[in-house]
Amino acid sequence: MALVNEHFLKLPNNYLFADIAKKVNAFKVSHPNADVISLGIGDVTQPLCPAVTESMHRAVDEMATEKGFRGYGPEQGYLFLREAIVKNDFLPRGIHLDASEIFINDGAKSDTGNIQELVRWDNSIGVTDPIYPVYIDSNVMIGRAGTIKDGKWSNVTYLPCTAENDFIPEIPDRRVDIIYLCYPNNPTGTVLSKEELSKWVNYALKNDTLIFYDAAYEAYIQDPDIPHSIYEIKGARKVAIEFHSYSKTAGFTGVRCGYTVVPKEVTAATLGGERISLNQLWHRRQCTKFNGASYISQRAAEATYTPAGKEQVRESIAYYMDNARTMRDTLTELGLEVYGGQNAPYIWLKVPNGESSRRFFEQMLYNAHVVCTPGVGFGPSGEGYVRLTAFGKREDCAEAMRRLRKWL
Amino acid sequence: MALVNEHFLKLPNNYLFADIAKKVNAFKVSHPNADVISLGIGDVTQPLCPAVTESMHRAVDEMATEKGFRGYGPEQGYLFLREAIVKNDFLPRGIHLDASEIFINDGAKSDTGNIQELVRWDNSIGVTDPIYPVYIDSNVMIGRAGTIKDGKWSNVTYLPCTAENDFIPEIPDRRVDIIYLCYPNNPTGTVLSKEELSKWVNYALKNDTLIFYDAAYEAYIQDPDIPHSIYEIKGARKVAIEFHSYSKTAGFTGVRCGYTVVPKEVTAATLGGERISLNQLWHRRQCTKFNGASYISQRAAEATYTPAGKEQVRESIAYYMDNARTMRDTLTELGLEVYGGQNAPYIWLKVPNGESSRRFFEQMLYNAHVVCTPGVGFGPSGEGYVRLTAFGKREDCAEAMRRLRKWL
Repeated sequence: MALVNEHFLKLPNNYLFADIAKKVNAFKVSHPNADVISLGIGDVTQPLCPAVTESMHRAVDEMATEKGFRGYGPEQGYLFLREAIVKNDFLPRGIHLDASEIFINDGAKSDTGNIQELVRWDNSIGVTDPIYPVYIDSNVMIGRAGTIKDGKWSNVTYLPCTAENDFIPEIPDRRVDIIYLCYPNNPTGTVLSKEELSKWVNYALKNDTLIFYDAAYEAYIQDPDIPHSIYEIKGARKVAIEFHSYSKTAGFTGVRCGYTVVPKEVTAATLGGERISLNQLWHRRQCTKFNGASYISQRAAEATYTPAGKEQVRESIAYYMDNARTMRDTLTELGLEVYGGQNAPYIWLKVPNGESSRRFFEQMLYNAHVVCTPGVGFGPSGEGYVRLTAFGKREDCAEAMRRLRKWL
Repeated sequence: MALVNEHFLKLPNNYLFADIAKKVNAFKVSHPNADVISLGIGDVTQPLCPAVTESMHRAVDEMATEKGFRGYGPEQGYLFLREAIVKNDFLPRGIHLDASEIFINDGAKSDTGNIQELVRWDNSIGVTDPIYPVYIDSNVMIGRAGTIKDGKWSNVTYLPCTAENDFIPEIPDRRVDIIYLCYPNNPTGTVLSKEELSKWVNYALKNDTLIFYDAAYEAYIQDPDIPHSIYEIKGARKVAIEFHSYSKTAGFTGVRCGYTVVPKEVTAATLGGERISLNQLWHRRQCTKFNGASYISQRAAEATYTPAGKEQVRESIAYYMDNARTMRDTLTELGLEVYGGQNAPYIWLKVPNGESSRRFFEQMLYNAHVVCTPGVGFGPSGEGYVRLTAFGKREDCAEAMRRLRKWL
């Protein structure tokens, strides 16, 4: 008899954003005339920039000719893109990577979900709390997270990030095998200084801990002192795997392309104490269960590194960061406690009057027809907050603020 | 200390096709003037058809406008494509599926590799032998395949398919939890009649076995009596998950799109005996670890169902099947034992003179500068055979046959 993987049954029925979409749909059905503005899921709204679409058209044209047609590409991605990444995303920050340390994917969600396959199912994990749900859910599915009680998983060390500690996670007082960090942070929109990040790298070096570092929002950093990559910290290439995405940088949420950096020095141990290179293991994993990202998407990503592409990407990021500023200003003016939004496209809003985040989400939806994401969906320390994204269209963002001003 | 998933270390160092590519490269380096023809990896060579590229251009243009831009799509794929699939791939064969039973992916390799996450790690598996290596390798990685000895995994039931049994796998004499079937078969190019396939569905119904059915090559079936989908067999929707791909149908190996059918009736059991719908579980898996296929690739796939798209896809399949005919005729004329190539784009050649398949692969490479795939790479029963693909260009295929005629 085929037996089901019962770890799946421990999960809440719906993935967070699928759940919210359901609730919003229910509202729309009962309020067909309401003009709902979504600042909920972190999805971009600006069209792809010309440098990118021109490159995609060229790639499609190539694929239409006998000479230009490309079938299977390398599972780890085309060299033209991996070399552009090394040269543009890392070299200018003094980070020297080899193209064989870059793995192109169909988006960071896949890899942040799949990376845990490389380590034993019973390794312990630590996460900053609140956090992007994929990290924990993917560990639940394989049994690594343990069982849930009062919203917490038994084999997960939670590192609270709240206004009380300025959203700076405290180094755990015990050893954890694997730590997930995401900076600029989703959902709080806060960042870590070089000094704070160094503490984590040192902790990892000292405790033989692996760091999964999600840098999906690094392009939104405005402050020149904030690190864009964990590899800016000495020693990090021995302990950290880093995830990047074009989704938020260049509006690729519908195009699907990102990449993962697995330096050759990063290892995990066998029970016998042998050190195994995770670069080689991840290569084996990708060759077996992945067949490369779309050629057209890879050419699209490459185009973001041309002079025109860089300029257009910068403009689009400035557009969203303008939204963030408007939102911060309005909400602060209204006397609310507002975090994030200065080096990240997310605003983390303290719910006024001690209301629960789910209740406040519903009130905002029903009273202002604006969708946010209840903080508790990101973990127990998210209770009492909601997330607003700056990815809306300018006019929607302004209108949402007008409505909140009227409502609150 | 982060401990490595030691199951990975049981695998051969390289994925089969990565290994062959390495050997071919070594030959090319030492023979820089040799004009090597690859009939090894099953990769298409014909350009994308006009219906598809026109649709991709339109999709890129949409993405360049504020109004037409699309960000995250549904994780299970756009409804326009899932409805086109239901209507075109199944309804004409009398199979009624709901769009919610279709999951669009970035290629069948991902899903055939990932699907095993839904079942317990200690379920037993059965595979026809020889077989596409992904099925076994993905089970090795999670520990389900056991340990390897003399080329066989301890927790895998091998169902030999050789000339001796006309490539018809025998129903196992014991219960197996999960069976992988691939028809038209990769690598042997053989097919199963409705009657033979019914035996498997009945076995599964009787033994509560789950069937993972890979139909990636169904478009190559010429004989009107051969089933294209396992759902043509009564009862199959209770026991089978089916994988489809546009890679071989429409030349999408570089575009990345396919789909998986998970009927709502398919279940697996908990230890307590409760039946769990795998449709719901797969949906949860995909929402958590996948973010949908590229919008452009999905529009490309949709275009294969337009009248022009269908006609152009048919032409491209006829082109490859012409190659298969040429290859079969030449090799048969040379007095070799040849299988497949009549309802599939693969020729399965018996190695003459009792040579090993790896040795014959090398001889063909060094003497005729033609790349095939050694049968043993697909499993123990593949020893004594090599696979040749019909996916080459017409002139390359003809030239390869001329060389083999000269050499053999």
